Amino acid sequence: MTDFFEVLFAQRAHRALRPDPVPDALIERLLDAAIRAPSAENRQPWVFVVVRDPAQRDRIATLVREFWETVARDLARPHLSDWLYADVDRWATSGLAQAPVIVVVCGDTALCMEAALPSSIFPATQNLLLAAQALGLGALLSILPVVSGPRLAELLELPEHIVPMAAVPIGWPARRLGPSRRIPFQSKTFRDRYGDAW
Amino acid sequence: MTDFFEVLFAQRAHRALRPDPVPDALIERLLDAAIRAPSAENRQPWVFVVVRDPAQRDRIATLVREFWETVARDLARPHLSDWLYADVDRWATSGLAQAPVIVVVCGDTALCMEAALPSSIFPATQNLLLAAQALGLGALLSILPVVSGPRLAELLELPEHIVPMAAVPIGWPARRLGPSRRIPFQSKTFRDRYGDAW
Repeated sequence: MTDFFEVLFAQRAHRALRPDPVPDALIERLLDAAIRAPSAENRQPWVFVVVRDPAQRDRIATLVREFWETVARDLARPHLSDWLYADVDRWATSGLAQAPVIVVVCGDTALCMEAALPSSIFPATQNLLLAAQALGLGALLSILPVVSGPRLAELLELPEHIVPMAAVPIGWPARRLGPSRRIPFQSKTFRDRYGDAW
Repeated sequence: MTDFFEVLFAQRAHRALRPDPVPDALIERLLDAAIRAPSAENRQPWVFVVVRDPAQRDRIATLVREFWETVARDLARPHLSDWLYADVDRWATSGLAQAPVIVVVCGDTALCMEAALPSSIFPATQNLLLAAQALGLGALLSILPVVSGPRLAELLELPEHIVPMAAVPIGWPARRLGPSRRIPFQSKTFRDRYGDAW
């Protein structure tokens, strides 16, 4: 038994993973948890491509590294603390390549209007991430391989109506992470209308 | 203690809520759970407007009812089973108005590129929904008030850079719901590339 709130509060982005394999049975528990999420009209427009093949993982890691080095790094640098910048840089240039599994979460536009796709895909993705946390696995959500261009869809051989929306590298954590840092919800919350403090 | 996987598997869209009040302390637990979700660059671009004021709730219920009756109902009808159609129709025309609280989840475009906003907002929304389930509350995620036009932003007096992304009505469930129905994950999952069955 794993306490619900403990899992939520323990969730972190795991950028350092050991290359040791993760059994199919565990990946299946994550996917079975993911599909319990809600979706518009219960259309369940998620599609998961579980990438273990080293050549395919290497292609994903390469496209992330190239996109990071040519575009994303300069955009991200001003927003990131030195610590977070160094950690993300290490992940994008070498860490991702270590992940033994990358689950690419896609949306099926034949099942769901584009406007309803994010609200139907990211809750399932969050379930997947939380379930990884609950089982002691490390994971994170990245849209870098998705926003970098058409190469991810090409290498996964996705048909036109299946759009990649997130990549979730999964593995055993290489280091222990403490609790997450968050701005208190009170300063993000209003009562009845914007501007009226909670 | 509440079992993590039990909460995930019990999650349902609660369309029938009792009008009884929900204490602030419980809403705060939901918001505190929501902000544990990941966001791009840990920018935490979520903004919550907790609507309890009856006049404000009535305005939201009215705009959903009008959008449903003039646009969304005809679009949705072909996709929904008779049972689900009747349930959604009842919710959109009268059920939503019963909810004692509606949390509108917004994204702050000053903190986050638009491309990264859905992946930074819907995981927090899913945490909120799951936490409601864990505490015995009923909730659901709706984008109807968001896609219906500019009226939601106007009535919440949102500044230009804060965009509404989801509405979550919350209350005590008026009926017990069984487990969700899902297509098995195996038929939504591929190995290494699209088309290669799991």
